Amino acid sequence: MTDTARVTLADVRAAAERIEGTAHRTPVLRSRTLDRLAGAHVLVKCENFQRIGAFKFRGAYNAASRLSEEQLARGIAAYSSGNHAQAVALAARELGTTAVILMPEDTPAAKLDATVGYGAEVVSYDRYTGDRVALGTAMAAERGLTLIPPYEHPHVIAGQGTAALELLEDAAGLDALLVPVGGGGLMAGSATAVKGVSGGTRVVGVEPQAGNDTQQSLAKGRRISIPVPRTIADGLAADTPGELTFSINRRLVDEVVTVAEDEIREAMRLAFERLKIVVEPSGAVGLAALLFHRLAPVPPRVGVIISGGNIGAGRFAELLKD
Amino acid sequence: MTDTARVTLADVRAAAERIEGTAHRTPVLRSRTLDRLAGAHVLVKCENFQRIGAFKFRGAYNAASRLSEEQLARGIAAYSSGNHAQAVALAARELGTTAVILMPEDTPAAKLDATVGYGAEVVSYDRYTGDRVALGTAMAAERGLTLIPPYEHPHVIAGQGTAALELLEDAAGLDALLVPVGGGGLMAGSATAVKGVSGGTRVVGVEPQAGNDTQQSLAKGRRISIPVPRTIADGLAADTPGELTFSINRRLVDEVVTVAEDEIREAMRLAFERLKIVVEPSGAVGLAALLFHRLAPVPPRVGVIISGGNIGAGRFAELLKD
Repeated sequence: MTDTARVTLADVRAAAERIEGTAHRTPVLRSRTLDRLAGAHVLVKCENFQRIGAFKFRGAYNAASRLSEEQLARGIAAYSSGNHAQAVALAARELGTTAVILMPEDTPAAKLDATVGYGAEVVSYDRYTGDRVALGTAMAAERGLTLIPPYEHPHVIAGQGTAALELLEDAAGLDALLVPVGGGGLMAGSATAVKGVSGGTRVVGVEPQAGNDTQQSLAKGRRISIPVPRTIADGLAADTPGELTFSINRRLVDEVVTVAEDEIREAMRLAFERLKIVVEPSGAVGLAALLFHRLAPVPPRVGVIISGGNIGAGRFAELLKD
Repeated sequence: MTDTARVTLADVRAAAERIEGTAHRTPVLRSRTLDRLAGAHVLVKCENFQRIGAFKFRGAYNAASRLSEEQLARGIAAYSSGNHAQAVALAARELGTTAVILMPEDTPAAKLDATVGYGAEVVSYDRYTGDRVALGTAMAAERGLTLIPPYEHPHVIAGQGTAALELLEDAAGLDALLVPVGGGGLMAGSATAVKGVSGGTRVVGVEPQAGNDTQQSLAKGRRISIPVPRTIADGLAADTPGELTFSINRRLVDEVVTVAEDEIREAMRLAFERLKIVVEPSGAVGLAALLFHRLAPVPPRVGVIISGGNIGAGRFAELLKD
């Protein structure tokens, strides 16, 4: 992997053109209560209203839409237990092709059903004995499919950056942007967009305390691995940053802050009771960082990306019971 | 009470001008899943995103804003255990005056805190022994306050009609509109707007089965009273239609349908899991009517007003547990 020059603002702008009309331009919400609690003007970019319920559709569709006709005719593939599975399945359907998704045997029925519902074939594996990257790569090679990785791909990263680009267009100036960090694709795309458009805007990643592999890696100046994180923010449970994403984030991200599990729960509750929106745990870390004052001093005008809203009502109730 | 001519489309349009910039123009959401389940193109008007979390702010602010300077200087008053309390409290603050709200002693702390949080004085009464209309009227008279009733007032009704007016503007044609019916103010305002703008659009009220006082009253051609309804849709638990609202609804509403308590719960769950929005039970009855096919045949293009989203996460969890 050579350089961050592999993803530029121009790539993000090109992705924005490709996804226009297929991905939603999601709304930006405001809340006086949130402003008061955060001590700042907060602009909330709602990727929970994105298709498939999370930002992942942006990157998956951008990457898939750039494949050749021949590649598309053969089909695409992905490995994911989460939102990327649905994103690739829907991208395939939108592009008139088929997707094969490798998912753990113990994937919750709702996620499996949603993926199958978009027309994908699901192949299951044992997450305790199988290596999903190796299995996914082998499966794609055998069947002639093109693999769309969840974050280690310039077109995926450029697609994820379009959410921040839209927010910058709608916000009329931001002093800082808060972005959840898992594998780092949303972070890398967002940082590319923000620093390209508005160099003075502070770009801040947010991780669960238990899953701060990117924070630790930035401190050490190299990618480090941590024990597999135990966190309710399942989308952010990466144990090591991506190689490509880290090469970008190391250069462009100003800071990574962390939030506790209870703080994530409180942010979900605030989103529910005051913003009237459903946010999954991974999607709530930016709000949590604002509510619990992880930026000091807090900049006057802050954007935050709510990355997704895929959580069942039952699981939500379980997480928020006292 | 003489005639429905007391509220006209012109009144609703005038209200729209008055509330512009103070009330939110709420978004209209679409969902492919909802369309599939309903068998129609559904346009969801999201008053859960309105200020104070419900449509009630429209009517309260419109009515209060039309008071004389002298009336405003003396202050306004209301009786309510629900969203109207917060609506009048916020309207007073926005207009630089004070509000006194008569609320039952056993009002949930969250609602009481919210009302006080908007700067209102709360006076409590015993709902089992006191008559809120008599108490509220006496209190207002003693203290020289102007009472803003929850629905029996032309300016309140005209204000509530602005949500439907906005939806008609944004929807580019509707075959039917579904509206929750409690006291009938939202229904009367919506029907006035819809029939004024688009006479061919069917206007359908939705009540909980247990609280179908308006449905029964329409069938009999006169206002009838039912036993105090037991329903999770606390905002729709009226036991008799308003005199003014019924005089309008009798003329303009095509039909009232009802939904069961479990159907309301399922609609709340669908809103949460697919639309990613929080809807209170009273706000979900229109969605429930669509999901459970109360319109037969279902018109191709249907609007539905989600009237509010004020429900705590704990109460939500309790209602939706299996």
